[in-house]
Amino acid sequence: MGRLFDARLGANESAFGPSPRAVAAMQAAAADAWKYGDPTNHDLKTALAAHHGVTPAHITVGEGIDGLLGTLVRLLAEPGASVVTSDGAYPTFNYHVAGFGASLTKVPYRDDCEDLPALISAARDSGARLIYFANPDNPMGTWARAADIEAALDTLPSGCLLCLDEAYVEFAPSDAVPQIAADDPRVIRMRTFSKAHGMAGARVGYAIGAPGLITSFDKVRNHFGVSRVAQAGALAALGDADWLDHVRAATAEARARIAALAAPHGLVALPSATNFVTLDCGRDEAYAKAILAQLVARGIFVRMPFVAPQSRCIRVSAGRPADLDAFARVLPEAIAAAQSGA
Amino acid sequence: MGRLFDARLGANESAFGPSPRAVAAMQAAAADAWKYGDPTNHDLKTALAAHHGVTPAHITVGEGIDGLLGTLVRLLAEPGASVVTSDGAYPTFNYHVAGFGASLTKVPYRDDCEDLPALISAARDSGARLIYFANPDNPMGTWARAADIEAALDTLPSGCLLCLDEAYVEFAPSDAVPQIAADDPRVIRMRTFSKAHGMAGARVGYAIGAPGLITSFDKVRNHFGVSRVAQAGALAALGDADWLDHVRAATAEARARIAALAAPHGLVALPSATNFVTLDCGRDEAYAKAILAQLVARGIFVRMPFVAPQSRCIRVSAGRPADLDAFARVLPEAIAAAQSGA
Repeated sequence: MGRLFDARLGANESAFGPSPRAVAAMQAAAADAWKYGDPTNHDLKTALAAHHGVTPAHITVGEGIDGLLGTLVRLLAEPGASVVTSDGAYPTFNYHVAGFGASLTKVPYRDDCEDLPALISAARDSGARLIYFANPDNPMGTWARAADIEAALDTLPSGCLLCLDEAYVEFAPSDAVPQIAADDPRVIRMRTFSKAHGMAGARVGYAIGAPGLITSFDKVRNHFGVSRVAQAGALAALGDADWLDHVRAATAEARARIAALAAPHGLVALPSATNFVTLDCGRDEAYAKAILAQLVARGIFVRMPFVAPQSRCIRVSAGRPADLDAFARVLPEAIAAAQSGA
Repeated sequence: MGRLFDARLGANESAFGPSPRAVAAMQAAAADAWKYGDPTNHDLKTALAAHHGVTPAHITVGEGIDGLLGTLVRLLAEPGASVVTSDGAYPTFNYHVAGFGASLTKVPYRDDCEDLPALISAARDSGARLIYFANPDNPMGTWARAADIEAALDTLPSGCLLCLDEAYVEFAPSDAVPQIAADDPRVIRMRTFSKAHGMAGARVGYAIGAPGLITSFDKVRNHFGVSRVAQAGALAALGDADWLDHVRAATAEARARIAALAAPHGLVALPSATNFVTLDCGRDEAYAKAILAQLVARGIFVRMPFVAPQSRCIRVSAGRPADLDAFARVLPEAIAAAQSGA
């Protein structure tokens, strides 16, 4: 539209920003950017291993979860292979599957949640080598209980890997985070510095899994793909637990405010374990699309699920007070315009 | 070895650093790192297009030439396909070819130069879809003449793409830079901000080619792979021609000094169109390896070609005066130790 948005509430970025320590580390690294970064990501992997109580051999670092998913799909989803995901879940996973030529089975959400038993059942039926399962989920913000995930692992077909995308896990209640041994060959967990750590623009994520699987990443990944700046920032971010607490608290406040702002207009906030709120607009996709278009036309960048029935909703990222002030200012008009078909 | 090197002269980084404007741009972007970078790299592509007198549709931006080579190989070098390179040329290209399963034909260097007619001839014989050709060459620093490259294009077998890796082109004499129409479907050129622009740690490179080929990158690449910080830095670096001139001049001075330091020890500098000097040690690989080991043991990080007969040489990056002072200090001892078999 040729103008900047008044509020970026569409990409689930953390408007609260990175830790000041991460910013300082990235700025120092920028001056040293003539040096290649460490292709083994040694220092970051070592710190991540200590943080998670695993060894560096359990961790691979990549260019965000997008990059890691690309490598994982490449390793497992050759033409003829079968892969399972939820219908309406992360499209970049589907993009990689299409790119590498495997066939993709999509399982419906159940009650706005990814349905792990149904995913596993579909994997069994299709002989799938890989299941994509995000917990908490994007774009709905919902989550599965840890105990249910842990129990479901025992029903995974042999030779089928569960990719557990935990991009939003730092925002989730503790009973949404399953206990899975890092050596468990049935699961690979994906984490990122893009969300709670506020470093979406730096491109750094990591996967935790059994060393045999993790080693296979080294056979095909772009070894210099994670920049020196990103490595330095991630390392500093990981060491700043106070900042993470601050972001979590600010995010929870923002979620509550989004829900409160939306309710008078008949938009119902789904429970969220993420840094966004998915608002059930109460009608069909056309109505949700109309609200979204009216918000975007008024300078508020939001997005929405792209598959029915989830597409009756819009998705609003947890912004700063000023971002939500802007959202609050235009929401009544946007709703009125959507209702009048303007 | 558990200690820092006194001089990093092994990876052909630009110790002269990025443009101060690029550093400032990266530092500003670091504070904004909570925002995703532009997945289309719009501003950078537009500036690159203007710089090269082409359109943005002729350019794709990626995570360094390494990332771009990975994507190119993925697009062209499926199992069963044939690919050609020089024996001893960039190993990361070979790594990607192995990873995607094509077969690789290696052509010997001729007089320490990549031999384009022989590469093309091998491509014809093997029905290759892709030739890798670096000009200037790494690890030898030598170059082909523009007119010879231009003439060779007409002998390329139909359906075979020439990947022209110009990572070092900013250091090359103008008669090493072929004139090739950006619409020419026979060639894709790779450029980088890692060398003359001093941004190896930022991870940003680009390819110039015919729009049909460039579009195909968008079908498989990691769209968010290039960080916001790297995009901002590259854009600023591109705008600082004075800094590039400064780096070129400082690099030329460093090359001359490396040659002068080495000559008294019987190490002969090959002509270089890059930011490194390849020194012919005058004997076999074992002798070159011994010199390299003695330099490394004395805190000077250098590398060497890994295939005979090029492996009679060591490769020394153009460092700052202090780096070369350190090199100068230890070189006599290192040579003496290598000669005595210590």
